[in-house]
Amino acid sequence: MADELILLDLWSSPFAMRVRIALREKGLDFESIEEDLSNKSPLLLKMNPVHKQVPVLIHDEKPVCESTIILQYIDEVWRDKAPLLPSDPYERARARFWADYIDKKIYSTGRLVWATTGEIQAAAKKDLIDCFKLLEMVLGDKPYFGGKTLGLVDVGLIPFYSWFYALETCGEFSLIDECPKLVSWAKRCLQKESVSKSLPDQYKIYDHLMDLKKKFQAQQKF
Amino acid sequence: MADELILLDLWSSPFAMRVRIALREKGLDFESIEEDLSNKSPLLLKMNPVHKQVPVLIHDEKPVCESTIILQYIDEVWRDKAPLLPSDPYERARARFWADYIDKKIYSTGRLVWATTGEIQAAAKKDLIDCFKLLEMVLGDKPYFGGKTLGLVDVGLIPFYSWFYALETCGEFSLIDECPKLVSWAKRCLQKESVSKSLPDQYKIYDHLMDLKKKFQAQQKF
Repeated sequence: MADELILLDLWSSPFAMRVRIALREKGLDFESIEEDLSNKSPLLLKMNPVHKQVPVLIHDEKPVCESTIILQYIDEVWRDKAPLLPSDPYERARARFWADYIDKKIYSTGRLVWATTGEIQAAAKKDLIDCFKLLEMVLGDKPYFGGKTLGLVDVGLIPFYSWFYALETCGEFSLIDECPKLVSWAKRCLQKESVSKSLPDQYKIYDHLMDLKKKFQAQQKF
Repeated sequence: MADELILLDLWSSPFAMRVRIALREKGLDFESIEEDLSNKSPLLLKMNPVHKQVPVLIHDEKPVCESTIILQYIDEVWRDKAPLLPSDPYERARARFWADYIDKKIYSTGRLVWATTGEIQAAAKKDLIDCFKLLEMVLGDKPYFGGKTLGLVDVGLIPFYSWFYALETCGEFSLIDECPKLVSWAKRCLQKESVSKSLPDQYKIYDHLMDLKKKFQAQQKF
């Protein structure tokens, strides 16, 4: 019997995008169930009672939560095709280090760039550009962070490409001027169907993030 | 030639304790170099230029950073003895999930309990007890989170036993009343030499944390 794979999903979530990419890299069929975070489904609350967040991958009725953990799970169960982690323990530790760095920095710093104004935004913009420059240095002259193929770090970072237009517009800067190699890397990733099918349009994301920004401002969040 | 293992260490860091425990569980000899965080060594800055934090495990001159990543590295390199992660991918994902939960919750919430007062402290205390009760539920009737032997979650959590006296004294509560099974689990872990040798005395940690609290208050941190 084929594996039953259900993804508790959200079109605009960079974390959900990661899982969509990994499943497609492995050539796996899955059912995507779109969640409404303002009205979470009983299934989501049952499958992720601790964090109550997407994405959740339900594999034969068993849930796996937290996107970076899901990616490693997918890689360990379906090992034969498109490995996301290298086989050498030291290289695996390096990949986990940068995936963790992205988890700790990019979402939170990027959100301050599109959701705030003034000094907080200016500081976040500087911080984010520094992060991207550091990642560009880590990439070096390799086509992907994973080397010749897409790896854990690529899959962790590429969803934030969908934020690029919003970041540039809100932060008034040009990513291609600041980090040309990182932009080339992103375009390279986008040539893969696993990635292009999993990422929403940047303008649609921009409209969505600006709606969220208005809500945050009304709630006096930030 | 035997592996050269150097740990950039700090006696009071729960994250460094994790690495000491894992190395001892595996029966590995290592050189501990005590760091002074107020005057970080050139070696630390060179080996962990991104976070500039302990612990760093230097294995044959190559650095591995971030304690949960170091634990997985140790487990992958020295696989024959005392496995920290189960072999089944689903069980591995579960262990990673709870290790990640501990990383996200216990240090930051616990710190608010010993370092603050008033409403912030009261809210943190409630939150921390809820976390510990949840972890107690996850433990269930097993001797260890890892089952019959110490695993990733045990090694991630047990260093915070060294905080228990400070948490109870500052937060004015009794962990044995709130979470008796978790306290029994901690005592069980402490019977292992790998753990008892790696954890400092609770009273010494209390004095250290109270010194830090005074410094935070002087800096108007929190």
